[in-house]
Formats: sequence, C-alpha cells, structure tokens
Amino acid sequence: MTESVAGFWAVVPAGGAGTRLWPLSRRTSPKFLHDLTGSGRTLLQQTWDRLVPLAAERVVVVTGVAHAAAVAGQLDDLPARQLIAEASPRDSMPAIALAAAFIERWDPEAVIGSFAADHVIADAAAFHACVREAVEVARTGLIVTLGITPTHPATGFGYIRAGSPLPGFGTARAVAEFVEKPDAAVAARYVDSGGYLWNAGMFVAGASVLLDTLAAYHPDLTAGVRDIAADPDRLAELWPSLTKIAIDHAVAEPGAADGQVAVVPAGFPWDDVGDFASLGALLPHDDAGMTVLGEADQVLTLDGARGLVAARGGRLVALVGVTDIVVVDTPDAVLVASADRAQQVKAVVDELARRGRADLT
Amino acid sequence: MTESVAGFWAVVPAGGAGTRLWPLSRRTSPKFLHDLTGSGRTLLQQTWDRLVPLAAERVVVVTGVAHAAAVAGQLDDLPARQLIAEASPRDSMPAIALAAAFIERWDPEAVIGSFAADHVIADAAAFHACVREAVEVARTGLIVTLGITPTHPATGFGYIRAGSPLPGFGTARAVAEFVEKPDAAVAARYVDSGGYLWNAGMFVAGASVLLDTLAAYHPDLTAGVRDIAADPDRLAELWPSLTKIAIDHAVAEPGAADGQVAVVPAGFPWDDVGDFASLGALLPHDDAGMTVLGEADQVLTLDGARGLVAARGGRLVALVGVTDIVVVDTPDAVLVASADRAQQVKAVVDELARRGRADLT
Repeated sequence: MTESVAGFWAVVPAGGAGTRLWPLSRRTSPKFLHDLTGSGRTLLQQTWDRLVPLAAERVVVVTGVAHAAAVAGQLDDLPARQLIAEASPRDSMPAIALAAAFIERWDPEAVIGSFAADHVIADAAAFHACVREAVEVARTGLIVTLGITPTHPATGFGYIRAGSPLPGFGTARAVAEFVEKPDAAVAARYVDSGGYLWNAGMFVAGASVLLDTLAAYHPDLTAGVRDIAADPDRLAELWPSLTKIAIDHAVAEPGAADGQVAVVPAGFPWDDVGDFASLGALLPHDDAGMTVLGEADQVLTLDGARGLVAARGGRLVALVGVTDIVVVDTPDAVLVASADRAQQVKAVVDELARRGRADLT
Repeated sequence: MTESVAGFWAVVPAGGAGTRLWPLSRRTSPKFLHDLTGSGRTLLQQTWDRLVPLAAERVVVVTGVAHAAAVAGQLDDLPARQLIAEASPRDSMPAIALAAAFIERWDPEAVIGSFAADHVIADAAAFHACVREAVEVARTGLIVTLGITPTHPATGFGYIRAGSPLPGFGTARAVAEFVEKPDAAVAARYVDSGGYLWNAGMFVAGASVLLDTLAAYHPDLTAGVRDIAADPDRLAELWPSLTKIAIDHAVAEPGAADGQVAVVPAGFPWDDVGDFASLGALLPHDDAGMTVLGEADQVLTLDGARGLVAARGGRLVALVGVTDIVVVDTPDAVLVASADRAQQVKAVVDELARRGRADLT
C-alpha cells in the first residue's frame, strides 16, 4: 500500500436520479447504492475503495437527505462530519462547493478532487497515478480535470479539447475548451483528431482556488457555501438560495476560457453507467453473449438468446431466442427493452409518474 | 335456443402438458384450466359452453386424476358420473374409448363427438351446424371428423385429403387419407390444391361404432375399456395395460384406408393454441400491435414495443422498443421469448426438469 497524498481530500457527489437504470435504480434508491457490476460492492463502496488509498480518512460524501442514512450504512468508516446532506438537489456545483468550503476550514491548504459515486473505473492503479499528477498540477493554482482517452466516438459525453502541454509535468496539458455532447459525425472527427478527451466530470483543485475561481463567476454561490461552512446551522436557510448549476458551466468552461484549467489525460477504462447498454458493455458475458447480473441459476437462456439480464426478483427468468435484449426483474416491476433503446428507459419513469404510479419510480 | 341433438353425447378430453404455454400453463395447471383469451371463461368452460347447446346434460369430461377436482370446480353442472379421471396419461384413444364404453352402456344408440378442452373456436353457430351434419353422417355407421378449411399453409397440423362427396349430405365427403404434418412447401401445395383440410382431432361416431371399429385394429383396447365400463372398480387395475395411442393412429388412419371415415369441412375459425404465437394471433391487439392478456393497467409500452404480454404476476411490466416479443409474467417465473421461437418454449420446461426445478414446470 503506497502512502496517501498529503493534504488531498476526496469529495464524492452521490446524487442522480438514475432513471435510465429503472427498475434496478429508483428515486428512493439511486444507482450508486447498488452493486451493478456483481463485485459484491456497491458503486458508492467501489468509489470509496478507489479513493481511500489517495485520501485515507479524508473522504467527504455529499448526498441528498433522503439517501444520507443509506450512504452512512454502506460506508462504515466515513466520519459523520464528512457526510454532507443536501436539503434538495441543486446540481453539482453547490454540492462540491459546499464540501470545498467545509474542507478549507478543516485544512486551508487542501487540494480536493471530486469524483462521482456512480462511475465505474476498472484500473485503480492508473486512476491513482492520474489523480496524483492532477494534485501536483492543482498545487500550481490551476483547476485540473481528468480527461478520458476516448475508446469510441461516444455522443453521450461532453469532450475536452486539449491545448499545449504544461511544462514540468508528465502528461498534463492546458484545456483549450470544453465542448458539448457532439453528434456522431462530430464525435468521430474528435476521436480521429487525437486531440479530444471525454469530460468525465472529475475535477481536482485547491479548495480555496476552486471557491475563489467560482467567486469570479458566481460570487453569491461562493459566499453562500462559505457562510454555511462557518455556521452549519444555516444550511437549511441558505441552501435553497444557492444557484443551481453544474460545475462544468460554473467554473470549468469559463475557467478554461480564462486559461485556468488543465487536463490530465486518463487512459483507464471509465464508464458512467448511463444506461443498460453501457452496463452490459461493462460486464463480462458468456460465450453466447449473455450477461447475467444477479443469481445466474435463476436465469435460463435458450435458442441463441443474448443480452443483459438482471435477476433481482427472486424468480426464474427464461429467455428464448431474443437478442440484444435487456431484461430486469425486480419484485414489483419487470423491464423488457431493446438494448438499442436503452436511453428510452427514462421515459418509462416519466410515464409511471404521469400515471400516478410514483410508488414504482 | 335451439334444441340439443337427441342421442348426442359430447366427450371432452381435458389433457395435455401445455408446455409451449409455460409459464402460464404448468404441469399442475394445464392450459384448459386457464382463461387464455380474456373472455372471463377458461378454455374448458368455453368448450363446455359450446357443447351444451348440442348435448345438453350429456357432456363427459375425461381428465387426469390430478386435474379432476379443478375440472369439477370449473363446471358446476357436470354430473359426477360424467367426470372420468384417468389414472395416468395414455394418449387420446384410451380416454375417448373409455368414455364411449361408459356412454354405450348409458345410451346404446348414442353418437359421441370428441372435442378437446383447449381449442378455441370463434363461431359457435358454425361449429354447431358442422357437428349436427357430422352426427347425421355418423348415424350411417361412419366415423366422421371435422376438417378445418386451412387459412394458411400451417406446418403444425396434420392434414386430411378429402375424397368424394357423400350422397345425401350437404357438405360431407369421404376421407381419402390422413397425412402427417407437412413441411412448408408441401403445406403450401395442400392449401393451393383446395382438396385438403386441417385435422383438428374432432371426431363424431356412434359410441358402439367407434369401439367396434377400434376392436378391428386394437381388440385388447376395446375389451379393456368395455371391462372398465362394466365394472368401474377395475379402472386402476386395467388402465395401465391399455395401449397408449392417439385416436388418429388407432382408428382414423386405418379406418380411412378401409373407407369408414368421412369429413365435414368446417369453415369456422379454429385454433389449438399451440404456442404463444398462435395465442397472440387469436387475440385482439391495439393500434400499435400490442396484445395484453391480464391487467392492461399493469403493462406499459413505449417506443414502438409490440407483441404479446401476459401480466399475471401482479407487477408492472414495461416494454421499451421490443418487437415481436412474448413476455409472460407470473409470480414465480417470467418468460421473454421471440415470437418466432414460440415453439421452443417447450424446451424451457425440459431444461427446468433437467435442472431439478420441477417446482416451476
């Protein structure tokens, strides 16, 4: 075990509706609380396991009040003061900024790194190496993002256009700009060019640097989170007034335009498990092309059936001759979807809400 | 209400494993016990409803001992002596012959008609007209079958090659021969020729004529069932020794070769509900091509999903973008099959038995 990174704090935003993984993931039980990869650890626990070697006991989790107890139940070693419960979802910037505001009080020289609770990263060692470099770069006063080397022309992620190499660092480069999710043709051009990376929403920066940079664009937001950190009793009062905004729009994009953002290219396999198609691609499959999540002996496949099956309903699931299929069995709902329509699963949740069946969402 | 046909007795063999409709149909609960068409009546009850106008109180049901109580529970007006419980399945001929042997003792001039408990016939009036003609023909000493006018070149049924018209009857013809299930090319030729009918396994004959004809080919079988009818206490003793054979092979095919079988062509819509594809074709579907069996408000379809869904598990079933799909949800098992592989559902039951999961079959 190598030593943790002195002065480095990990911030884990644990949020997201996860409606594209319904009915596994529910409003009341988002995907980070689930063991989606069959590893025996939930995505949140896997994130914790990946961060502890870097941050030791300096991990802060920010989650909704509804999920705070579940988070605490899954992370035995999380100190109570490091579990921050949001009164309501206000997107990623207020959550990360509030954590930064607490951390700068506890450790004024802290560098923080923000890593979502529901991403899957297969190679922890490579992740650690990238974060260590990012922390070094952050100590120069820059905001640093980890940019994933694209493996295919994905249209579901934003991209980072890398600029010049940063002198004195192994791989870090300036960020020329963040660009929105492209269409397929543009994505292909990005990937072919070799100059673009996926924006995985992983940011490393000095806590005070991040807050001060944010103050340049959203002064009220910085002031608000610093007020809460100074007097946590004011959380309920101040939280609802904070600007609802993603960290990308709040500091990363304007910061890049102002030359304050760097990127460490990351070659490790990364996925945000955005839908069942990406979950299926993450998991091993048998020779027939069948991926089973849950109890394999509860699944029976015949006649060339292939796809992804999650058997979480305690019942037998039999598949006959269906291909590129997603079947998710749970005690109160079963989903049968075509893998190429995995993104549309979100619409089921919307339709259930419309029908007054919020009990199933 | 027209009068019933004097001296006509209906025999209803209620058997069959129904493995192609798993998991709706089980060993312990074959398809005839289920309301598969959403009519509010089970297939057995629909068969009863269709026969009572012809046979009044003269309906006899032959079923396995395991299902006798369920049959009695579904047919309030069935007299106890007319419910014959087979000790073990021995195919259709012993079942029908035993019913015939009882009936010839109760009514020596009886004409019987045998109609499976799990077929679907949409037009009762047309069915009644065909049976009435078949009874008239049977009174001349022939064995009469109802042959269904083919609506497509089915490969799942045997065919009847019709011979010369029978003088003095409206539509009846001699049977030239019964032919086995054809391949697609042969089936197409049969249908194009106009001279072939589907063998739906419906037979009408004098009870004594049937038994005496059977005696010519299988004398021990006729003797055995007449011995049981004379002394029902001997059922358990004699039943296991009876030849296990279908009525087609036992009397229809050899009888046709000997010029003793006639056919009444039947134009009514008929289906033996052999698998989920045929069940789907029987039922109405919505504009999108979706057929729902069970509680419609438990089914949610999106993004062009179409196929057959049976929601019998008390849970929500959501379908996204899947086409030509069969989804059957039950409390302990869920089936997801491609409609064009509906025949393979039987293999699921075999595989479950192999895995020691007979509890699910």
